Amino acid sequence: MQEIFKIMDIIQQIRKPIESELDQYRKVFDSYLVHDNSLLNSALSAVSSRKGKMMRPILTLLTAKLLGEVNDNSIFTAATFEFFHTASLLHDDIVDESDERRGQPSINNSFGNKVAVLVGDYILANALINAAKTGNTRLVDIVSKAAQELSAGEILQLSNVQNETFSEDVYYDIIHGKTAALFSACTEGGALSVNASEKDVNNLRELGHLIGMCFQIRDDIFDYYSDASIGKPTGNDMKEGKVTLPVIYALNKTNNGDYKNIALRVKSGGVTQDEIDALVSFTKENGGIEYATNRMNEFADKAKDILSSYPDSEVKTSLFLYIDFVVGRTY
Amino acid sequence: MQEIFKIMDIIQQIRKPIESELDQYRKVFDSYLVHDNSLLNSALSAVSSRKGKMMRPILTLLTAKLLGEVNDNSIFTAATFEFFHTASLLHDDIVDESDERRGQPSINNSFGNKVAVLVGDYILANALINAAKTGNTRLVDIVSKAAQELSAGEILQLSNVQNETFSEDVYYDIIHGKTAALFSACTEGGALSVNASEKDVNNLRELGHLIGMCFQIRDDIFDYYSDASIGKPTGNDMKEGKVTLPVIYALNKTNNGDYKNIALRVKSGGVTQDEIDALVSFTKENGGIEYATNRMNEFADKAKDILSSYPDSEVKTSLFLYIDFVVGRTY
Repeated sequence: MQEIFKIMDIIQQIRKPIESELDQYRKVFDSYLVHDNSLLNSALSAVSSRKGKMMRPILTLLTAKLLGEVNDNSIFTAATFEFFHTASLLHDDIVDESDERRGQPSINNSFGNKVAVLVGDYILANALINAAKTGNTRLVDIVSKAAQELSAGEILQLSNVQNETFSEDVYYDIIHGKTAALFSACTEGGALSVNASEKDVNNLRELGHLIGMCFQIRDDIFDYYSDASIGKPTGNDMKEGKVTLPVIYALNKTNNGDYKNIALRVKSGGVTQDEIDALVSFTKENGGIEYATNRMNEFADKAKDILSSYPDSEVKTSLFLYIDFVVGRTY
Repeated sequence: MQEIFKIMDIIQQIRKPIESELDQYRKVFDSYLVHDNSLLNSALSAVSSRKGKMMRPILTLLTAKLLGEVNDNSIFTAATFEFFHTASLLHDDIVDESDERRGQPSINNSFGNKVAVLVGDYILANALINAAKTGNTRLVDIVSKAAQELSAGEILQLSNVQNETFSEDVYYDIIHGKTAALFSACTEGGALSVNASEKDVNNLRELGHLIGMCFQIRDDIFDYYSDASIGKPTGNDMKEGKVTLPVIYALNKTNNGDYKNIALRVKSGGVTQDEIDALVSFTKENGGIEYATNRMNEFADKAKDILSSYPDSEVKTSLFLYIDFVVGRTY
């Protein structure tokens, strides 16, 4: 519980320079989550009540404010990406057959797969309506390409199940598509919303990509530790057939056939919890966590390098803190 | 078989004024259905091989040519709507748990629900990339709102299961959302692509809506007849819980409690094929088919009225034929 208070403190600090802009954003966002039809309306309410940390709108608005004045288009852009992210979570939960999301029942769990697919489509449409409101088709193109990369990344992950090798490069491709592409779209979109120069747009796009890579590697590292407070065992990703950076490193370093066989069955199915536990221990003993942490920190350092070239400001400080939060968060 | 040749003849005639434009469209469309990832690529090839009659791109291009010269934006617009339609079919087949589409296994059947959800998202992104290529955010707005109406219409249909009444108005709302909204977007988008006047844009939007309503009513009427050639029994829609215009009319006209009870179980589940057959006969005996056909023809007449106000041309003749085909088609 104390941990959660600490996290909220840090997020509070990160949000400080854009508090009023976030309020505006929230009003816009919520205004799209009501509908005359009672079934759709209750599904949208459920979506609205599962509030996340707003990592993507915060990043969008901080980027906009780093390079100019937050305006209506920045708000629409922030809403675009949170809708997009929300829609992708809904479809993800169907794909992963997840029962929970943010400590509450998932939409597929509460309303069934049919409604969840359709509500996901509806919310994706909300994303695009907000993108259209900016009057900038370049933003639409950015969102659409992020959507392509996201679905292609997820499919790559599914198809990687058949792959008998454990490639670090394929891993980076997957996490770019499933996570970093959207972070990159957030910073690019935020920069575009304030008519930033082409150089700034490119810089910030890269910044978002790097932050997104950190975000997903951190997420993947969590899976090697249990979380007693929420009853989460280790190896959830492995149960879903996902083989992530720490274990990829350990397998390639040791070339240990026994563990490779377990890992192959992680991908193809039929692995036991005991085997997963063994693979987790093997990964830790062979420096998988350190390696992944180091790679994550390299991405974070590159992100900070980009940021350092901008003049000091409260917003810049928040963005540094944002990066620290992403790499240091404990959930 | 002869029937199919006749249909292809009519479609050939309808397409005649836009043959070369359709070739251009097809090239653009196909160029988006390839990918480096082999799993995604085979799913996209499967999608590409299930070619439909291109009803939506044909309507988009005919509209554009009625009001001006087909240009690159008209082609992108046509591709937008066919991608959109294709994505919605993929998600529909998941929602309806359909095993077949256009005489071939559905994508969910061949590749599983997970891949089908993601390929649907990928193709929807293709739709938006093409919309963005027009440089016109109004088109993006039209597509997004059609996407909203489509998912809301499908959800309304699902939620109507709980509804104990049989309302003609709810039926029209459902079919507007699930079908007519997209036809309306096609004609509106086609008109916009050639910078038509606001008056023409509005006229054509309404034309598309009316054609879409005809299209869905005709589709719904088919369900009351078996098709021996493809082994399709009557009452498929009823098996999926859908209560359509012919039976709604018959139930409201007769107020027959026994058949109302069967129809309620059509919605809530647990109905037998014998009961469906009985409900189909009851509907026919009580003029349900004639009534639905008359309503469809009223929509078609209104559509023709709009079209009549435009100067005669080969394209206008094709559009009349298009309407006749939609209301008269036998599959």
